[in-house]
Amino acid sequence: MNGMGEETGFEVVIVVPKGKRKEGGDMAEKGDSVEFLVRELEKAGLIVERFRGVPAEFLKIAAPLIVLGQAAAELELKKLTYIGMELQFEWDMVTAFVRQPDGSLFSWYERYSCFRHLLYGIVNKTDSNIALKFNDKDIKYEKNESLLKRLEIEGVVKQVFPLHDEVKRKQLLRKWALNWLDFTWQPVDEIYSYFGSKIASYFSFLGMYTRWLFFPAAFGLATQLFDFGRMQFLVLPSFFVFIISWAVFFFQFWKRKNSALLARKYFTFFLRSPDFVTNDSFMSGLAYMERITDNEVLFRHVYAKAEKGIGCFSVLWGINYSLNECKAMPSEANEFNYTDPIKKKFYSSRPAEKTSIQADEWWGIFRKVRNNVIVVLGIICLQLPFELTYAHLYNITQIEVLRYLLTAAYLIAIQYYTRIGGKVAVALIKYENNQGEDSSAASLVYKVFGLYFMQSYIGLFYHAVVYRNLGTLRKVLIQRLIVSQVLENLIENSIPYVSYNYKKYLALHKKKNDNSSPMGKNVRLSTRVEKEFLKPSYSASIGADLEDGLFDDYLELALQFGMIMMFACAFPLVFCFATLNNITEIRADALKLLAMLRRPVPRASATIGAWSNIFQFLIVMAICTNSLLLICLYDQEGKWRIEPGLAAILLIEHILLFVKFGLSHFVPEEPAWVRVNRLRNVSQARDLYSKQLLRSITKLEHKDD
Amino acid sequence: MNGMGEETGFEVVIVVPKGKRKEGGDMAEKGDSVEFLVRELEKAGLIVERFRGVPAEFLKIAAPLIVLGQAAAELELKKLTYIGMELQFEWDMVTAFVRQPDGSLFSWYERYSCFRHLLYGIVNKTDSNIALKFNDKDIKYEKNESLLKRLEIEGVVKQVFPLHDEVKRKQLLRKWALNWLDFTWQPVDEIYSYFGSKIASYFSFLGMYTRWLFFPAAFGLATQLFDFGRMQFLVLPSFFVFIISWAVFFFQFWKRKNSALLARKYFTFFLRSPDFVTNDSFMSGLAYMERITDNEVLFRHVYAKAEKGIGCFSVLWGINYSLNECKAMPSEANEFNYTDPIKKKFYSSRPAEKTSIQADEWWGIFRKVRNNVIVVLGIICLQLPFELTYAHLYNITQIEVLRYLLTAAYLIAIQYYTRIGGKVAVALIKYENNQGEDSSAASLVYKVFGLYFMQSYIGLFYHAVVYRNLGTLRKVLIQRLIVSQVLENLIENSIPYVSYNYKKYLALHKKKNDNSSPMGKNVRLSTRVEKEFLKPSYSASIGADLEDGLFDDYLELALQFGMIMMFACAFPLVFCFATLNNITEIRADALKLLAMLRRPVPRASATIGAWSNIFQFLIVMAICTNSLLLICLYDQEGKWRIEPGLAAILLIEHILLFVKFGLSHFVPEEPAWVRVNRLRNVSQARDLYSKQLLRSITKLEHKDD
Repeated sequence: MNGMGEETGFEVVIVVPKGKRKEGGDMAEKGDSVEFLVRELEKAGLIVERFRGVPAEFLKIAAPLIVLGQAAAELELKKLTYIGMELQFEWDMVTAFVRQPDGSLFSWYERYSCFRHLLYGIVNKTDSNIALKFNDKDIKYEKNESLLKRLEIEGVVKQVFPLHDEVKRKQLLRKWALNWLDFTWQPVDEIYSYFGSKIASYFSFLGMYTRWLFFPAAFGLATQLFDFGRMQFLVLPSFFVFIISWAVFFFQFWKRKNSALLARKYFTFFLRSPDFVTNDSFMSGLAYMERITDNEVLFRHVYAKAEKGIGCFSVLWGINYSLNECKAMPSEANEFNYTDPIKKKFYSSRPAEKTSIQADEWWGIFRKVRNNVIVVLGIICLQLPFELTYAHLYNITQIEVLRYLLTAAYLIAIQYYTRIGGKVAVALIKYENNQGEDSSAASLVYKVFGLYFMQSYIGLFYHAVVYRNLGTLRKVLIQRLIVSQVLENLIENSIPYVSYNYKKYLALHKKKNDNSSPMGKNVRLSTRVEKEFLKPSYSASIGADLEDGLFDDYLELALQFGMIMMFACAFPLVFCFATLNNITEIRADALKLLAMLRRPVPRASATIGAWSNIFQFLIVMAICTNSLLLICLYDQEGKWRIEPGLAAILLIEHILLFVKFGLSHFVPEEPAWVRVNRLRNVSQARDLYSKQLLRSITKLEHKDD
Repeated sequence: MNGMGEETGFEVVIVVPKGKRKEGGDMAEKGDSVEFLVRELEKAGLIVERFRGVPAEFLKIAAPLIVLGQAAAELELKKLTYIGMELQFEWDMVTAFVRQPDGSLFSWYERYSCFRHLLYGIVNKTDSNIALKFNDKDIKYEKNESLLKRLEIEGVVKQVFPLHDEVKRKQLLRKWALNWLDFTWQPVDEIYSYFGSKIASYFSFLGMYTRWLFFPAAFGLATQLFDFGRMQFLVLPSFFVFIISWAVFFFQFWKRKNSALLARKYFTFFLRSPDFVTNDSFMSGLAYMERITDNEVLFRHVYAKAEKGIGCFSVLWGINYSLNECKAMPSEANEFNYTDPIKKKFYSSRPAEKTSIQADEWWGIFRKVRNNVIVVLGIICLQLPFELTYAHLYNITQIEVLRYLLTAAYLIAIQYYTRIGGKVAVALIKYENNQGEDSSAASLVYKVFGLYFMQSYIGLFYHAVVYRNLGTLRKVLIQRLIVSQVLENLIENSIPYVSYNYKKYLALHKKKNDNSSPMGKNVRLSTRVEKEFLKPSYSASIGADLEDGLFDDYLELALQFGMIMMFACAFPLVFCFATLNNITEIRADALKLLAMLRRPVPRASATIGAWSNIFQFLIVMAICTNSLLLICLYDQEGKWRIEPGLAAILLIEHILLFVKFGLSHFVPEEPAWVRVNRLRNVSQARDLYSKQLLRSITKLEHKDD
């Protein structure tokens, strides 16, 4: 039994409580709901392995590719074909569809969607209700009801979660999490194929950010190490200009990289190096597509390339759209709800529909603005006085011990405050007319970030501006960076570990007390599945249904970015700390995901969008705050006269703001080669479709003759 | 002959010099090139009417719809069909394609493209060169050469230009240019169908701008009329905040309106009110498309709607893309040049292609930046000192006469300066790697606007900041607005009129002297075509090949907008002048286009994009300059101390900048109903295509059986 548990191929597990063991070990009582579930799962074509672990009973599920394929066809999944178009998946045309970089047909996200569709798609198709039993409890399984949902409601199914793939996990652990040789390099493709696009884009952002951080870290170190003599007064302003330009360029290039990542999807494969696609299967797919399309010109071209052995085709990770379109797409599904059946009558004529949609839109904007006003007022009226009180008390307290007590009380208070704030934000966005999950998530991100922004920076501003106490500011900065970043890293990795061990202890302890089974004293968690069951999942500190653990990871990055950018001129060395911190962060996050937690549920959307806006906002804030800092530094005596120096700072500020908003005019967000590929695919598809439609007419007409 | 000339249907005219009249009036000499051209045109299916006018000889061209349709099919024109997709036009499927709002099959732009294709598509398809003659000059018409191009080179064809449609022109004149009752209303749909989308969007912008101008004009008037007593010191700052918010909202709403205009295309028609589409033709188109697509579900839906008589379909003016995509599309054609035959070998494998495209992109960015640096340096080093000298001299000169002389010299000098600047800009953009004509036009617009910006405003800044002389500033503002706007309006309308009359006089004079024809003394321009030939065309003051007259009209608007926005706080009344000016501007521009000029050649692209960016830039500038003005007003004594008042102004400035860049987060640029329609069309098309492809396979397989 244990040996089987280590086998790959089982990708999802269903956890059920351990049923009472019948006399003679015969568990297959008539009408037993777990037994029934297993039979139904097997009927759906899934491979089920049932075994009793120490803490619970597990049903490990695997699926043959054909079953997944049929589920994908039922889901009407759109997949890229070798001719560069996305078509609805059909199992009998499988050769026409492009495979993943690692050779598998479906991406992890697609596979998991299919699994969910298969599991929750088991419904009672008979004409009558079925009576099921579990531990002597009666369960009524109604007509047309999803079995798994019913069992979840009745508490028979405790959890459904994806399993780690042991081989790939160990490979990633070796190549990525424990590979300390290259600081910032990461196997992005493998991360993508194991965790999906959302997590892969987080790590590629983190990696690029860390790599780029080396430059300001070097400059920051230089400002501390060298004495520039008479030019010393120019050092901070030039550091300011450098930092802002650095950040602006970094973000423009990140957007380009992001576009390229979306298009890594269009990766290149050569027919002569068919690691994952055999020449035969490719040629057959091509011939097949030719039969579909009858488009001689295109295929002559393709064949010509194929014969030369250097043919290359654009193949996707995911999607075939530009970044902007990508952002727009997820909400598409939701917008069709405008024409949902209930409202249909109302929308039967277009002008009425237009008016109604417009009313909906403005009402949505109104609610969004109202909610944001509530959040901003909440932050300003409740949090601001609180933070200022703390900063002030901290500043006037002379006794060290009192300070520590104050800080402790403060830390406890803000824990509660942010938790309440998060709940309020989640509650508020429910009343917003957000289009799709992605937009809700973004709205939540903005609101919660508002809270943390005030909490993290207002004290720093207080020291910087009101007291002009750069010494304290620096101390607080270092303290925050070390405490909030390094300690947080430790905590975020140790909490899962502690929680895992505690649960393990509980389970084993219960077992020992509960039942003096034949296995006797040497009770231990022998299978991987049991261990994973006890591990915590990758969840966000707020609103687990909207966001996963990436929320906390992005939040940490954003707060760090804000801290180092907004107070760059007060303490240039801070960039070195941030660099060191991020290098460890990459490995720590990787370890956490691979070793400490369950395999995360893959998510389709990438909310880097909302975070990207936050980073942009922080850059703009940094321009203003650094100007303010420079003015404070320049105008030590507090004369507040606009002398040349002060005017120069204001001028620099305006120029930098201008650069920030003008750069995208020169460096487009989408690299030209991505654009060329995308447009080529679009136009190819259009031409093909057009030809196809016209061709089918002529055929029909010939038939008529 | 004259009667025929007034007939509609002739849309293009070819102008040839009057050949020497042979004895006996027999013009049809063997090999006469004009005669040959007429025969070739007629062979191509066009209807040609040849007649000798006073200044030249004219070939009026009309085309039956079927000929235009075949040209459209050859051009592979994409047109919207009734099922919401764009397909390549085919003449025998004409019922499937959506008609224009006025009932015609092709838009004016499409029709003109077809005409050009027909005219320039006449090539020598024989195996040998053909010898032609014109006025005893020998012309060699080579193999595979375009006849019209050859004749243009040889000077036989002097001009080819589109003709006004007299009926529609008079209708527009009555309903639009001479309709003074409603100040800002304009028949946008009719303007679109007569002039094309570029001119229509200019007028709808101008109309909306003028309507919105009433608000600040009212506020501006109020600031002058009322005394606010103790609150007087708050009037200007609140006017400042109001103006900027007004401008920001105006532009956001303009973008929405622009999206809606692009989607006016998706206008609604009801089956029960078939003004321009008969029920029969529609139903036959539908049935036809059903035969094409075989998509029962969709068509059952459509029929159901049609039977209820409230069916509505999204139908296009032009294009089916979002605004952003729209901007991206025109360059598509050009980008495919990356894979032009010459470079093909180099691009045969994708990584090489990627590298090469990247190199091209960066080289292009480098050249763009370099050119912009050249322009900016040119402006700062050459124009700035010149302008400052003039402003300074004007300020220190005490004698009125000297001032007038100075201004006259200055005006002459800047005429030359801007002309040279425009030429330099046109030369520079030739070295840029601009993708498509649209991008070049935008680049030109930015560069030339830079020139005019400096020229128009630097003097004003000088008075505002250096001398703090608000009195002079106001005087200069009024003077500029009246002189540069009102006089310019007069000039721009009178120059074409004068030029037309001069040319007419010349032609008639020549005729009288030249030839004592039987027509004798009463020589006059009897036909419309002759008159139009003498009218000037709608051309830009710079780079006629990239831009048409809209460049000058937009420039005028942008300079006015900059003037009233940037110095709003110095003189709130200026908005009233601008409003009055714009009301006349609408009619003046309409009159100019309808009565003074030839019908403009329709252009596909709308460069409002570049101008929109310029307007945005002017808003940002206005935030800064008005802050500066307020500081100057506040700090009369020049203490330059950051007191509460000054700090408040700086704070307001930053908040406004934030609002400017943050608003689009709340009010999307594309109205929801446009978006819903667009996405619905996209997904409908995708589903249909997908089904169609799969269906055709099954059909093929059945055939194989």
